[in-house]
Amino acid sequence: MPPHSSNPDEIIPDIVIGRLPIYLRALMRLSQEGREVTSSHELGRILGISSAQIRKDLSHFGGFGKQGTGYQIAYLEDKLRQVLQVNREWEIALVGAGDLGQAVANYRGFADRGFHIACVFDSNPQKIGKQSGKFVIQPMSELKETIISKGIQIAMIAVPAEYAQEVANQLVDAGIRAILNYAPISINVPDGVHVQYIDPVAHLQRMTYYLK
Amino acid sequence: MPPHSSNPDEIIPDIVIGRLPIYLRALMRLSQEGREVTSSHELGRILGISSAQIRKDLSHFGGFGKQGTGYQIAYLEDKLRQVLQVNREWEIALVGAGDLGQAVANYRGFADRGFHIACVFDSNPQKIGKQSGKFVIQPMSELKETIISKGIQIAMIAVPAEYAQEVANQLVDAGIRAILNYAPISINVPDGVHVQYIDPVAHLQRMTYYLK
Repeated sequence: MPPHSSNPDEIIPDIVIGRLPIYLRALMRLSQEGREVTSSHELGRILGISSAQIRKDLSHFGGFGKQGTGYQIAYLEDKLRQVLQVNREWEIALVGAGDLGQAVANYRGFADRGFHIACVFDSNPQKIGKQSGKFVIQPMSELKETIISKGIQIAMIAVPAEYAQEVANQLVDAGIRAILNYAPISINVPDGVHVQYIDPVAHLQRMTYYLK
Repeated sequence: MPPHSSNPDEIIPDIVIGRLPIYLRALMRLSQEGREVTSSHELGRILGISSAQIRKDLSHFGGFGKQGTGYQIAYLEDKLRQVLQVNREWEIALVGAGDLGQAVANYRGFADRGFHIACVFDSNPQKIGKQSGKFVIQPMSELKETIISKGIQIAMIAVPAEYAQEVANQLVDAGIRAILNYAPISINVPDGVHVQYIDPVAHLQRMTYYLK
C-alpha cells in the first residue's frame, strides 16, 4: 500500500480526500500548459479555494513544497497520484446498457486517466449478447462470477432509479468496494463500501438558488 | 424572489445549499415509495449524514418539522423546491455537440426535474445546421444573441478541455450566471457566476484512495 499520510496512524478526513482529485486536475492543466512550478496561491485562485486550505490539505501528506519556492508541479502530481492510488490502472464493471450506460461506456475520459471499463451487464434480454462499443453485453446472472474472476473492485451503475438499489446489492455481494452511481437516487451500502453520485440535476439545483 | 431564509439577512453557507438537492432527491424517493412522513434520523441513515446536521441545515429555512413528529415529506419537498427555486422550469444553453454533448442533450433526467435544453451550439462547420435530437445545432456566432433573446441564465459546457475556458468566457459575456461544466478542467469565471463540475473521474479517484 502507498503511504496514505506522512503519519501512518493519521486518519485523513474524507472531505480532504475529496479535494485531492481537484488539485490533481488543476495540476494536470498547468503541466499541459508547459508550466513547472505553481503555488498554493495560484492553485487557490484557479480553484476558488483559499491558499491556506490548500497548504493545510497537502500538509497531511508531508511537505510537498518549501515555503516561498512553490510546488514542483510534476512532483506534486506524482505524489497525489500515489496517495489516491491512481498511479496504476483500474478495471470497472458497468451495469446498465441503455442510453446513459452507452454514453458512459463510450466516454473517453475514463481510459485517459487510468480507468478501464472491463465488462458491461444488463437485464434486458434484447440487449444481452449484443455488442456495445467494444463490449458484449452480459446478463446479470454472470455479474458475480465475472467480477470475482477479474478481481474488479469498482463498478458504475447506469440503470433506472428504481433498479439501482437492487443492482447495488448484487455488486456488494460480488465484492465491489466502490460504486459510482449515475442513477438519480441515493443507495444504501454496508460500511466499507464507498458510493459517489453523478447527478447533474443536483448540481443545477445548487446553482439556481443563486439566480434571480 | 422566494424567501431564501427565515431571516432575510442571513447568509446561508454554500455547503448547506449544496446538501439541499441531496435532501430533495431522498424525499422524492420516499414519496415515490408512497411515504408521507420522515425524520432527520431516517434521512440521515439514507444519506450517510448525521441527523443533527440535517436538522441544523433545515433550520436555516424555518421550522419544517416539529420535535418528535418528523417531517411531512410533501411539505418539505415543496419548501426545498421553493428555496432552491426549482418550483419552476429553467431553460439551458448547451455548448458542444460531440459524443458527450449529444449524450447530455438526450439525457431525460433534466426535463423530468424542470431543466429544459433550449439551444445547442458547436463550432464544427460539419455539425452546424444538423439536427441533434430535437435541436438544430447553431454556430457559436449565434450564441450571445440567442442566449440574450431567450433570457437564458444557465449553460452546460460539453466541449474538449482545451476549449472550455474560451467557451466559458463567451457564456459569461452573454450574461450566463450558472455553468455546469462537463469538460474535465477547472474554469475561471467572475464573481457572481457559479460553476459546478461533472467529472466522473474525480469521483472515482476519490474512492480509489480507500481501495487495497
